[in-house]
Amino acid sequence: MYIEKINSPSDIKSLDINQLNTLAAEIRSGLMKRLSKRGGHFGPNFGFVEATIALHYVFDSPKDKFVFDVSHQCYTHKMLTGRKEAFFNDERFNDISGYTNPEESEHDFFKVGHTSTSVSLACGLVKGRDVKGETGNIVAIIGDGSLSGGEALEGIDFAAELESNFIIIVNDNDMSIAENHGGLYKNLKALRDSEGHCECNLFRAMGLDYLYVSDGNNIAQLIEAFKKVKDIDHPIVVHMKTVKGKGYRPAETHKEEWHWHMPFNPETGEMLASWSGENYGNLTCDYLMQKMKNDKSVVTITAAVPTNIGFTEDKRKAAGSQFIDVGIAEEHAVAMASGIAKAGGKPVFATHSSFFQRTYDQISQDLCINSSPATLLVNTASVYGMHDITHLGLFDIPMMSNIPNLVYLAPTNCEEYFAMLDWSIEQNRYPVAIRIPCNGVIHTDTTEDTDYSEINRYRITRQGKDVAIIALGDFYQIGEKLADLISEKAGISPTLINPRYITGIDTSMLEQIRSDHSIVITLEDGILDGGFGEKISRFYGSSDIKVYNFGLKKEFVDRYAVEDILRANNLTPDQIYNVIWHN
Amino acid sequence: MYIEKINSPSDIKSLDINQLNTLAAEIRSGLMKRLSKRGGHFGPNFGFVEATIALHYVFDSPKDKFVFDVSHQCYTHKMLTGRKEAFFNDERFNDISGYTNPEESEHDFFKVGHTSTSVSLACGLVKGRDVKGETGNIVAIIGDGSLSGGEALEGIDFAAELESNFIIIVNDNDMSIAENHGGLYKNLKALRDSEGHCECNLFRAMGLDYLYVSDGNNIAQLIEAFKKVKDIDHPIVVHMKTVKGKGYRPAETHKEEWHWHMPFNPETGEMLASWSGENYGNLTCDYLMQKMKNDKSVVTITAAVPTNIGFTEDKRKAAGSQFIDVGIAEEHAVAMASGIAKAGGKPVFATHSSFFQRTYDQISQDLCINSSPATLLVNTASVYGMHDITHLGLFDIPMMSNIPNLVYLAPTNCEEYFAMLDWSIEQNRYPVAIRIPCNGVIHTDTTEDTDYSEINRYRITRQGKDVAIIALGDFYQIGEKLADLISEKAGISPTLINPRYITGIDTSMLEQIRSDHSIVITLEDGILDGGFGEKISRFYGSSDIKVYNFGLKKEFVDRYAVEDILRANNLTPDQIYNVIWHN
Repeated sequence: MYIEKINSPSDIKSLDINQLNTLAAEIRSGLMKRLSKRGGHFGPNFGFVEATIALHYVFDSPKDKFVFDVSHQCYTHKMLTGRKEAFFNDERFNDISGYTNPEESEHDFFKVGHTSTSVSLACGLVKGRDVKGETGNIVAIIGDGSLSGGEALEGIDFAAELESNFIIIVNDNDMSIAENHGGLYKNLKALRDSEGHCECNLFRAMGLDYLYVSDGNNIAQLIEAFKKVKDIDHPIVVHMKTVKGKGYRPAETHKEEWHWHMPFNPETGEMLASWSGENYGNLTCDYLMQKMKNDKSVVTITAAVPTNIGFTEDKRKAAGSQFIDVGIAEEHAVAMASGIAKAGGKPVFATHSSFFQRTYDQISQDLCINSSPATLLVNTASVYGMHDITHLGLFDIPMMSNIPNLVYLAPTNCEEYFAMLDWSIEQNRYPVAIRIPCNGVIHTDTTEDTDYSEINRYRITRQGKDVAIIALGDFYQIGEKLADLISEKAGISPTLINPRYITGIDTSMLEQIRSDHSIVITLEDGILDGGFGEKISRFYGSSDIKVYNFGLKKEFVDRYAVEDILRANNLTPDQIYNVIWHN
Repeated sequence: MYIEKINSPSDIKSLDINQLNTLAAEIRSGLMKRLSKRGGHFGPNFGFVEATIALHYVFDSPKDKFVFDVSHQCYTHKMLTGRKEAFFNDERFNDISGYTNPEESEHDFFKVGHTSTSVSLACGLVKGRDVKGETGNIVAIIGDGSLSGGEALEGIDFAAELESNFIIIVNDNDMSIAENHGGLYKNLKALRDSEGHCECNLFRAMGLDYLYVSDGNNIAQLIEAFKKVKDIDHPIVVHMKTVKGKGYRPAETHKEEWHWHMPFNPETGEMLASWSGENYGNLTCDYLMQKMKNDKSVVTITAAVPTNIGFTEDKRKAAGSQFIDVGIAEEHAVAMASGIAKAGGKPVFATHSSFFQRTYDQISQDLCINSSPATLLVNTASVYGMHDITHLGLFDIPMMSNIPNLVYLAPTNCEEYFAMLDWSIEQNRYPVAIRIPCNGVIHTDTTEDTDYSEINRYRITRQGKDVAIIALGDFYQIGEKLADLISEKAGISPTLINPRYITGIDTSMLEQIRSDHSIVITLEDGILDGGFGEKISRFYGSSDIKVYNFGLKKEFVDRYAVEDILRANNLTPDQIYNVIWHN
């Protein structure tokens, strides 16, 4: 095995082409071991083995610097830069994150997990190198799927202004997470079809030099190309065609399913565990499919993560022109939703909490200033959501709920979620966002309201006294447990409140409970700073009511265990009780 | 005068070409009247007179719908759609805003003031029209300066997916607010130089059909072009060359100065009032010029509004490669700043509070997760800043201050601002944002700290008891007045605190003042929701301290008078006193 002897990129420079090809196969066996047992980004990593070998063969990392876009494709890079044990040795799997991480290696420069950032970050490394009078190649590595994002397009447009060494590798596998969307992909195809000779060239139209590599899974061809551009004195795009999932038949055939994959049997490709039971993705999809069937003005929009709300390929096809995946283009998605709403349509745009971060200005300017009645579905907005530092769903409450005109709703169970969603789609006064619960599909036999047009009306679900618990969204169930615990331990029967509205205060209810309550506890599934509970604290600030806000600390956590982080933030019912009654 | 008889677009359809040309001259006289007396967007409006006439001549607004990007160029449209009195009659100037506004007219569809949004909004109108089975042309009108923005590029890329009528007018005057930046402008030039025949074509590379109009200030030529594309069955770009400031020599000659202009003498072009005295724009520029001269690793970045921090053309030239204007590309600017910082450079990026809204995700992901020591200067972040609904500086505290790892500083005077800025540039641990004061340049003879590395240390500036006033940033001076008033009226000598740090709580000071204070008052220049004061309320929530938060209500206000909005929010010292002592 060559891989055994490779501890840093310099160790591959003495290998010949046959040895490098053997190394590629060894690397794939390492990828297979980790990914089949643990899951992860399969397709992007399998497709980029040869290119990573060639990059490290030609360039001299870390003096030459690689910036991986979204860094779904950085596993081979990790193997070649001292982190191979995290692939070949089960016990070392936890050594690494799934993304580039400067804390792991001097060969990584940024923690990256959102798409479309590499070119701009790398432009900064170029500029920093130049003003400091240093040398070395700066190489951004971006997949075709990431190209449609606004930040990437801004970066590519700007790059042409740099008058020094800068290499942008466009890894074109003709796929985003799902299929690509947008006009530029026609041009990428024309460039692939003409082996780069097509006169009309997006990259040249943005002022950049250009080189085409027809087989991005051919190490010899790649080495030749990289040698040509190494130490170049101006920015250039190296556009290479690769095969997503290369080397593993199931992944080459079913590219979308194998972009990210759960643990599987390497012999058959079958998943080791199957999704079972209800989930909000499929339920949301079923609801929207029915809704769209009955009403041609309903339009579902996603941005490169359609299965997030259950829109698998067959559902997308069945929905026809009422379904739009915009690709990586969340800014466009929100602004377009505003336009659809203004034209009398009923748009629903869904993505992850973390990806809504790309659309703050569009939510504010395009949507809320214009009071366009569009619906935003905010997914994995929770401590129970995604656990990587770049994908946390803990910040959307402060980010979105303080934007005027937006009605941000937090359902506490399945029936309430769909009642809110249905109301939102049918009303025509407000931009509405809904935080999809993330603590499992919990049903209720309580009748939920079907009309949410009287904004900021909280709901008392258990009438008690002395203590009121205002438990937001999917922390409502913690509120229930806490109420039980308080009854049991303190002999007080607390009032339990489902606030439902994140974006405002039910002043009349809060005034009313003043008379027979002395303690108010708030619970929210997100950071406390700028969040929901602080608004309650402000409201009662000058009164005698004691307010306790429970939620998460403002920090970037990484790869956490839910139980640990709940405990670290005093969020179990026992801890909450102890904070208040034993302080 | 033809304009006298024009009350709706249908009134111009019977005019012949000579009459339309005369109408253009009349419209310019109306523009001149309003702009010379009141100020406003000069260059964009003077350049787009003929195109607007031709659009309304050929298309049938409001069935055919125009979406003006940033809407700096919508004045002629306003004149032709029933709002001409706001130009010709001084007393009616206040009838209109400077931007499109559906509350003014059925011919306007969106409130717009940020750039790069038109294509996506219009895509939404297209989709809404189509799913509802309606007809009519949808026309987006975007300037070349707006093209570099990520939202615009996402929209243009997506537009090619629409398989129905959609017309994108690219109004190319070869200028942004300042000069254009980015590689795509080379392609626009190549297209202009070749009269649209250049094979390499950005718009075609993004999958769109294309038509070139060589003289976008020639009504006859424009009518011919628009007739060609009217009722077209697919998306097309109409790329037209216009002259910014057309018809007024000073504006044609000094395009940047005349993009937006203060009131002036129409005979000479001279401003009626001159900027006098100190302002933070010039002071910041002088400081950065000196800093860059002494340290080659300092890089100043702006995004199409360089004069915002005093970087006029001569200063930009003098700064050389240490100054970068990225054009409309704020996302890129922040990410690049992170890269520069990682490479050991010292980047400073400045723009308006309202434009930082475009970069939430870059601040979070590219900058703060990576703890890159870049400096962000947040300008017009204040009730004293810009008063149009689309440019409010009231939201950056909730938006930015709740992002982990960011240190957001609020100086209270000139010396403190520059002490903070200097510390920020020289330190290498934190991403730092600084809220430039907006209440005039106030000097102090107090010695300001030069080291802010001990994060979240508030400063007691007057030691008193019973009442503590925590007065943030440029509301510190209100805090001073309030302290005086309380001393005078209540005979209490309050403690006055300059918190300096927006992003955190000085828990030890807040604990310490508990012993001899019973009331804490917070003051902040922004909305209360998600802001600074609520964090103080949370801190004291379960204590006996009474906390009163003063700041602005969460709402989109438009064209307000500062005194009115301060009064409406109980923000004068008298009002604050009355709220607390007479409730």
